[in-house]
Amino acid sequence: MIIKTSPLAPKKLKKLYEIDGVSIASVSCGIKKNFKDDLVLIKFNSPSKIYGVFTNSKTPGAPIVWNKSIIKNGKVSALIINSGNANVFNGKKGEEALKKIISALSLKLSISEKEIFMASTGVIGEPLDYKKIIGKIPQLIKNLSNTHESWLKAANAIRTTDTFPKIYSEKIKFNEKENFYINGIAKGSGMIAPNMATMLSFIVSNIPLEKNGTKKKFKHIVEETFNSITVDSDKSTSDMVLLILIKNQNRKTIGPQTEKKFFDKLTTLMTNLAHQIVKDGEGASKFIKISVDGAQNYKDAKNLGMSIANSPLFKTAMAGSDSNWGRIIMALGKTGVVLNNSKISIKFGHFFILKSGENLLLKNVKKINNYLKRKEIEISVSVGNGSGSSTVWTCDLTKNYISINTDYRS
Amino acid sequence: MIIKTSPLAPKKLKKLYEIDGVSIASVSCGIKKNFKDDLVLIKFNSPSKIYGVFTNSKTPGAPIVWNKSIIKNGKVSALIINSGNANVFNGKKGEEALKKIISALSLKLSISEKEIFMASTGVIGEPLDYKKIIGKIPQLIKNLSNTHESWLKAANAIRTTDTFPKIYSEKIKFNEKENFYINGIAKGSGMIAPNMATMLSFIVSNIPLEKNGTKKKFKHIVEETFNSITVDSDKSTSDMVLLILIKNQNRKTIGPQTEKKFFDKLTTLMTNLAHQIVKDGEGASKFIKISVDGAQNYKDAKNLGMSIANSPLFKTAMAGSDSNWGRIIMALGKTGVVLNNSKISIKFGHFFILKSGENLLLKNVKKINNYLKRKEIEISVSVGNGSGSSTVWTCDLTKNYISINTDYRS
Repeated sequence: MIIKTSPLAPKKLKKLYEIDGVSIASVSCGIKKNFKDDLVLIKFNSPSKIYGVFTNSKTPGAPIVWNKSIIKNGKVSALIINSGNANVFNGKKGEEALKKIISALSLKLSISEKEIFMASTGVIGEPLDYKKIIGKIPQLIKNLSNTHESWLKAANAIRTTDTFPKIYSEKIKFNEKENFYINGIAKGSGMIAPNMATMLSFIVSNIPLEKNGTKKKFKHIVEETFNSITVDSDKSTSDMVLLILIKNQNRKTIGPQTEKKFFDKLTTLMTNLAHQIVKDGEGASKFIKISVDGAQNYKDAKNLGMSIANSPLFKTAMAGSDSNWGRIIMALGKTGVVLNNSKISIKFGHFFILKSGENLLLKNVKKINNYLKRKEIEISVSVGNGSGSSTVWTCDLTKNYISINTDYRS
Repeated sequence: MIIKTSPLAPKKLKKLYEIDGVSIASVSCGIKKNFKDDLVLIKFNSPSKIYGVFTNSKTPGAPIVWNKSIIKNGKVSALIINSGNANVFNGKKGEEALKKIISALSLKLSISEKEIFMASTGVIGEPLDYKKIIGKIPQLIKNLSNTHESWLKAANAIRTTDTFPKIYSEKIKFNEKENFYINGIAKGSGMIAPNMATMLSFIVSNIPLEKNGTKKKFKHIVEETFNSITVDSDKSTSDMVLLILIKNQNRKTIGPQTEKKFFDKLTTLMTNLAHQIVKDGEGASKFIKISVDGAQNYKDAKNLGMSIANSPLFKTAMAGSDSNWGRIIMALGKTGVVLNNSKISIKFGHFFILKSGENLLLKNVKKINNYLKRKEIEISVSVGNGSGSSTVWTCDLTKNYISINTDYRS
């Protein structure tokens, strides 16, 4: 089966920056077929700060278990990522494979094992051929560079069923002469579900943050970006989002204003990468934004939004450009959140379908039907119970989702 | 779009019994297009005992609200059912439409309004044209009869996207001369999800039960039958299962043995109807039984089983006859139930894929691939944590599910 690039793929890729202190290399080590790149090394010149959010799956992969055990130290010197095999559910052998890779890399790079993170993505339950990975370490080290191309190559190497590479960058102006930078790459197109770090994403910046509280802020941004998207409600065993802050040689005092700018730009970057994942949702033909307000709190609002976003009946209606808003009512009803029908309003774009419980579909039915043919759709729901709000993003459910997932075995 | 009969439909329909004390009629009242029957009256000669389980949706239809308000009286004299319109989210108008129908029926049949139950299924959020229903009451009353054909006609009239009528019956031998009977009809093929009464089903028996505790037993059977099936994880606003015990003129003392026989047969009947619903799952090409044992309790076991049964990635793998058991591991992992990988075993049919965490797929890969091509598949999962077990049933997820739900608007 030939998978075409998603019709929702960005027309243009943003250029990533050449950030001092980090270098990247990608090679093909033979885990993926067809000699495609499937192994990435990201190396930091000196131990750097690291923050992570990991899947809460109870059958996590060996890399998740390892990373969770070392992240409390908060330091990273290298990150190795393979695609094609998730190293999940391989028991002791999976653990051993990981340890052998970490150990070899530690020797070759003369860095502590506890500063080496790993990520694996691909098929579950098949032994990881660690020798293929270890054999390529010298070549990876030799190829390290920090150009846009090296980032893009890495974004390609971590793809599985992704139809396009996911990259994004932001610049924070510090003074006339100097800027700080953020580069991010990501992968993911199926098995994307909420309430955890929903795929692989690696974000690197050279900003010298001073304050504590970065961990909390990062988790909060993950909650509203990567954890607010869904493709198929399934949850991966391997997923993580890592933020790495490179140790800056000429350390500056940046002040609260630049720090605020940084977190704003980080939010933009993470939102954009999360959207790219949804836009590459398996079989997706439409990108759908769902905003819920008027709930009693954020949790209820997100629960309602995600219930719509995960409903196969809603998602197939969107695929068919069908204004069947009954399926939205059904999805709201199944959450368990108490609702007052006469307070519910629903809009497709700017058009009210339901206003305080009153059906207005027929007033604008032509315009709404045209609106639903668009590639990007916004749905707003107000439930009139309070001030809790949330925005989530999803895609439609099409026959191509079925094709990809009945035939795929990487 | 022409929908063909499900390939999983039963080859032969069981004959329903002519039970004294109940009569049925079906007509076309014009809510469904194409002059198809869309209205059913089930009438009891004298007030009969009624037990019900209803959807727990927070946006329930007007009939659900009405039935819940009268079921505490425990009596029924008539049941009216329409298809094509669910009378959900029609606010005051929906309530008024229901009241007008109940009131007209009460007058014509000279029975109390509080002994008339209603069920509606079909599109959400469109006003129910109650005049069409009321206009047909005289014809319904005139046509009442208690033959197999009248039951079958009713099972057809309550269909929406169902591709075949769902009926089943059981006989309980009482003595040489006398039997008791159970007749059941059901509908449902999409929007079937657990944790509630999952569709419409009406079950009628003439057994003169004496003991209390029927309500509890009935709810328990619903939990293990209609609430243990899933097609697409979506939950309807309208669904209910009703059990009606006809008042027997020549009341017998039946004793505990016959009573036990009755509940066993009732379980068989409800299991069969629940299976028929899954076998008519929208687009289904395979019927899948998932048994989980070794969980800490029933709840955990069911949670694990349902997580597999609801996973789009698992269901598409089944559609493709793909032994990708990693998706089962993923589904187990996402429930939050604590698992010990080295204790997990998985079988496809009689073939171990995983035995105490060890991958045995390659030993039987040909046999397993052949097995997965069957129309009926059994998957057993043991998690080795305790003695809790549960069985659930689902179907695969195919392109036809998407076709049906992008194009359907009854």
